[in-house]
Parts: sequence; C-alpha cells; structure tokens
Amino acid sequence: MAASAGPEIERLIALLSKLPGLGPRSARRAALALLKRREQLLQPLAEALAVAAERVKTCSLCGSLDTQDPCAICDDRSRDTTLVCVVEEVGALWAMERASAFRGRYHVLGGLLSALDGVGPEALRVNSLVTRAMDEGVTEVILALPATVDGQTTAHYLAERLSNAHVSVTMLARGVPVGGELDWLDDGTIAQAMRARRPA
Amino acid sequence: MAASAGPEIERLIALLSKLPGLGPRSARRAALALLKRREQLLQPLAEALAVAAERVKTCSLCGSLDTQDPCAICDDRSRDTTLVCVVEEVGALWAMERASAFRGRYHVLGGLLSALDGVGPEALRVNSLVTRAMDEGVTEVILALPATVDGQTTAHYLAERLSNAHVSVTMLARGVPVGGELDWLDDGTIAQAMRARRPA
Repeated sequence: MAASAGPEIERLIALLSKLPGLGPRSARRAALALLKRREQLLQPLAEALAVAAERVKTCSLCGSLDTQDPCAICDDRSRDTTLVCVVEEVGALWAMERASAFRGRYHVLGGLLSALDGVGPEALRVNSLVTRAMDEGVTEVILALPATVDGQTTAHYLAERLSNAHVSVTMLARGVPVGGELDWLDDGTIAQAMRARRPA
Repeated sequence: MAASAGPEIERLIALLSKLPGLGPRSARRAALALLKRREQLLQPLAEALAVAAERVKTCSLCGSLDTQDPCAICDDRSRDTTLVCVVEEVGALWAMERASAFRGRYHVLGGLLSALDGVGPEALRVNSLVTRAMDEGVTEVILALPATVDGQTTAHYLAERLSNAHVSVTMLARGVPVGGELDWLDDGTIAQAMRARRPA
C-alpha cells in the first residue's frame, strides 16, 4: 500500500485485513465503505466494538460469550439441564442454536486436540467438562464436533475421559446433508451414509 | 441469528455484515475473531475507527481522503501540478498510487454518470474539475475511468465539458493486461488490443 492515505487510514486497513474473510484488497474496500458512511457505519461500528470490548465476557460455566455470566443459555431455566452438547467453538454453538434442534446446555471446548498444532487436552476445557458431567445431574453428553480427523480424535478422547462419569456419550449422526445431491457429495460421506442406513 | 448471543454481539455482527465482502456468515466469524483477540484486534480496531471518524477528512481540492486538507498528495510540492488524473473513487486513486505510474495530482469524481442509477453530472465533482482545468496551470487531464459503459459515458461527457479549457484530455490505454493469457481474455479486450496495436 503506497503512502497515499494517511497513517490513520493505513492502520485501519491493516487491522481490518486481519479479520477472517478480508484480505488486503477487501480491507481497503471495507475501509473506504466505512469512511464514506460515517454516521451510518463507521461511528456505530466503533461504538459497538468498544461496547463489546467492555461488556462481553466468557461464561464461567460453559465457555460461551455473553454480556452476562452465567450466559443467557446457562441461565435459562426452561432448558434441559440433563443434556450437555460439546462444541468446538462459540461459532458452532451459534450454529446449533440457529438450527433450534437442541434445548439443553452447552460446553465450549475452545478448540480440538491436534498433534500437528501441538494442542493437548490441557489447552482445552476438558477437565471442567468432566466435572460438569459428574456433578450436575447430567445424563447425556452429545459430542457435536466436526467430522474431521482432529474432531474425531477429540471425540474419542472425550468419550474415554467421560467413561467414569455415568453419562451416555453420543455424537451427531453422519450422512447425506439436507439438499445434498449424491453427485456432489464426497465418497466418505456417501460411505458413512450407506453404513448408517436405516429403514425408510 | 438466534438470540444465543447478547444484543451487543448481535449489533456488532449486524454492523460488520454491512461491510463490502462480509456476508452474515463471515460477519459472525469476524465478530468471533474480534472477541477472541481483544487486546490484539478488538480494542485497536475500535480505536482506529474512532480516530478515523474524528480525523479523516475529504480533501477540498481533489476529493481524496486524508487527515490533512489539502491532502498529502495535493500538498506535495514535488508532484507535477500540470497533470490531473481523474478517478472514479478514492479506491482507484490508491490503486494508481500503488502502481507508481503517475506523479501528478488527482481529481476524485465521486462516482460515474449512470442513466440507470439516475446519477447526473450535478451529483459528481465535475464543475470543480472544469474550474481546476481552467485555473491551475493544468495542461493535461488524464481520464483514468473504468472500461465500462458508465465509465466511457462519463469519459465522453468530461471530454466535452473540458473542450474549452485548453487542456489535452487523454485516457488510459486499453489492451492485454500484464500476465494476461489470450485464452482467458474476453473478446472485447482482444479486439481493443488488436485495434490499438503498435510496433513491437
């Protein structure tokens, strides 16, 4: 980037380009869009970020993000406290909530075990999961982890660690996604869907 | 988006999703990335936006954005004041500067004439361009406008408007872009490059 914009604009572009989904070019476009729409976009975003920086906390129970602790989900008495759904990250928790397919509580691991990236169990919220599974009247722990090598390694490890907790440990079904055309699916998904076939 | 994140996070996501290049899904990912990296990303971005909102101005001479007015380019005495390069937007000005192919000054139009979108000359910085071309010892106006229908319409209109200003009006060459494989170029570009062919 040439020094045609002042250092303040350069710094804004550099920070925006660190966001996932924005590269150097789209960060410049975003900075311009912000500077063109100051009242509608730039100032509100600056304020929203300052508010988030000040108020959003990690829930001490489940590890999710909210302005209250415990978070609104952990605090919701209408939810089933016997079920705990383990997710990798807050993004996965939000995805589960959008699907409205689960009315229990969550546990955010904060990552996946990864030999390659050197992530061991001590880097994840594993101990607090085992404690919750033992203490809180939990009957089922659902491992909603990604269908990747690291996701499955982590699921196996968690199942092992939870084996003394007197809870049933389950995982999401694998198969053909809704709207999935067989033509476009990878072989692994088709093989899984075939192995897990059920009466029509 | 379910109400699983608090209203502060929802508002942050809604604002981020208005940035060009970010949709609802990538805005959620960006919000999470920000909340995970508070010291390194969230707070610096909040501050950079606040600084930009306060300090960045539109240059009263050329229409570019800078913290000073006149902007650093208009204020740079080493630049050739006889040349004015007309660009659609500040993003195009930055692109020209990155290319380091022009050492004169700029004029940011603020858009293109568009019959479809109802943009007429009065919505653009046309009059100030004509005034500059007449008053400031300018000898050449280079129209660096996009090679689109609106860009060419605007270029023709500006050439007409500048016909009494005793300046030569030029435009960027059209042809094969650097690295352009003929196989992958559109017919229009190839035809232009053929018409504008020159001795090898």
